[in-house]
Amino acid sequence: MTHTPLVAALDIGGTKIAGALVDADGRLLARARRPTPAREDGDTVMGAVREVLRDLGASPLWGRVDAVGIGSAGPVDASTGTVSPVNVPGWRDYPLVARVREATGGLPVELIGDGVAITAAEHWQGAARGHDNALCMVVSTGVGGGLVLGGRLHPGPTGNAGHIGHISVDLDGDPCPCGARGCVERIASGPNIARRALAAGWRPGPDGDASAAAVAAAARCGDPVARASFERAAQALAAGIAATAALVEIDVAVVGGGVGKAGEVLFTPLRKALADYATLSFVRRLTVVPARMGTDAGLVGAAAAALTGRTAGV
Amino acid sequence: MTHTPLVAALDIGGTKIAGALVDADGRLLARARRPTPAREDGDTVMGAVREVLRDLGASPLWGRVDAVGIGSAGPVDASTGTVSPVNVPGWRDYPLVARVREATGGLPVELIGDGVAITAAEHWQGAARGHDNALCMVVSTGVGGGLVLGGRLHPGPTGNAGHIGHISVDLDGDPCPCGARGCVERIASGPNIARRALAAGWRPGPDGDASAAAVAAAARCGDPVARASFERAAQALAAGIAATAALVEIDVAVVGGGVGKAGEVLFTPLRKALADYATLSFVRRLTVVPARMGTDAGLVGAAAAALTGRTAGV
Repeated sequence: MTHTPLVAALDIGGTKIAGALVDADGRLLARARRPTPAREDGDTVMGAVREVLRDLGASPLWGRVDAVGIGSAGPVDASTGTVSPVNVPGWRDYPLVARVREATGGLPVELIGDGVAITAAEHWQGAARGHDNALCMVVSTGVGGGLVLGGRLHPGPTGNAGHIGHISVDLDGDPCPCGARGCVERIASGPNIARRALAAGWRPGPDGDASAAAVAAAARCGDPVARASFERAAQALAAGIAATAALVEIDVAVVGGGVGKAGEVLFTPLRKALADYATLSFVRRLTVVPARMGTDAGLVGAAAAALTGRTAGV
Repeated sequence: MTHTPLVAALDIGGTKIAGALVDADGRLLARARRPTPAREDGDTVMGAVREVLRDLGASPLWGRVDAVGIGSAGPVDASTGTVSPVNVPGWRDYPLVARVREATGGLPVELIGDGVAITAAEHWQGAARGHDNALCMVVSTGVGGGLVLGGRLHPGPTGNAGHIGHISVDLDGDPCPCGARGCVERIASGPNIARRALAAGWRPGPDGDASAAAVAAAARCGDPVARASFERAAQALAAGIAATAALVEIDVAVVGGGVGKAGEVLFTPLRKALADYATLSFVRRLTVVPARMGTDAGLVGAAAAALTGRTAGV
């Protein structure tokens, strides 16, 4: 009886640190999880990562693990093995790859950004499966993404490629926290959808829920202000998707995340706006579809990166 | 004495059809050229291509040619071997690859867009040499470009990748002939630099030259309206370059073409604007430099595509 190798996957975000042992078919065979002590110092955050690895190490399957994949909130720098997640101030240029390698007895470690990880998962098992050139996006509190080019994940030299949230589609537009103006995220993220609806006179219901999900619910009931806010978000997403298609030739854009779950309130104006911006002959075939992977996407994608890195002999 | 193989290169534009025999070091060993009969029917245009190939075929070096590379005005479709150059209405989905293959006795033919060809040339011998991740642009009557990713040319499935001229950086902006709004080309091309200067009150000198080159000359003499028009072009180019860097991680942007030749009138505001838009940690290292290749760039790039295609066994 053969024991095929496994990889350990880590999905590190501002809220939680999730881990899993994953086989070559992408099945999650063991799991562990800790809250991210995001306000604490760097060593304390690393302590939570070590606890997740310790829990995974307690599995009888651990002996078959021969590589680790990490998908981390960004920015990351795969070229130096460091991370500087915006929402984890204790980690700035933090040598996560070296620390995880130490904690796992010297296993090879692959690091990618969380948007790239989601993309790896959608390409392996989700809505981008079978597509050689794809953009996958997470539209949520922020807007992230990743690219598949020529049939392979394109993390870029530092593991951040596909950062569609911070391309400017409105060069004179509102300042974005990143320092630029009119970024896709500044127009299309959940908080910005809610902010714009409130500013235009939309009011939450008796439960006081002023989230983008509540705006989506109002839009589904025909509220014109709520609809307009989603239409503006769709326009920015369409301009960003069309730009990506003109630059690297993609044939599908996968949209996930909380805002992606709004359904036709988002996708109907998004497809309409895409027809306005994706006009060149070679981008007209582009389709937009909802994401298919669930909350395990980050783990599955991190595992994919470890499996691919192993294949590449890294 | 060995006779190393050569490739035949074709550079097909709306004004001229140029050809050359090129060795593995990129030296142009024989040349031919015809005006493009751009207003004629498709067969007449192809007749001019055949004459260029016939002239090259008359060279005693022709016997060493084992592949053909074509850089053509776009859009092209490398996946079907067809071209539809905007300025050559007689060619729509024209089967250029098949016709050139017939005309050359069945040689393998590689087709790429002209922006991709310029990029191949700059990467091989010019300003992008030694850079594994680069955007090369031609800013002229139109705005085109191409990408080098991971050390290799990235033409995309249809040979059109790097089409930075038609990404929207101003989603509510002026309508672009492509059908979208606020495209980089609509703001930064030579004719648009001139148009904007004229609209704001700039007037040509006694020679009546109202070109972007004349606006550049006025800007160098301190004319504030001329300067402002170049600054706006620089802003749009910066937003487009920063978007490209966020999407695919490039470390250099090479700017050529007639507008690129404006020198510091363009590059000073371009570098300033880039600091405003390229704010993410992994794009801040990006530099912008002028192109180095001259008028042979299209031929050199087409040759590079043929040589690479041959290496890849295509």
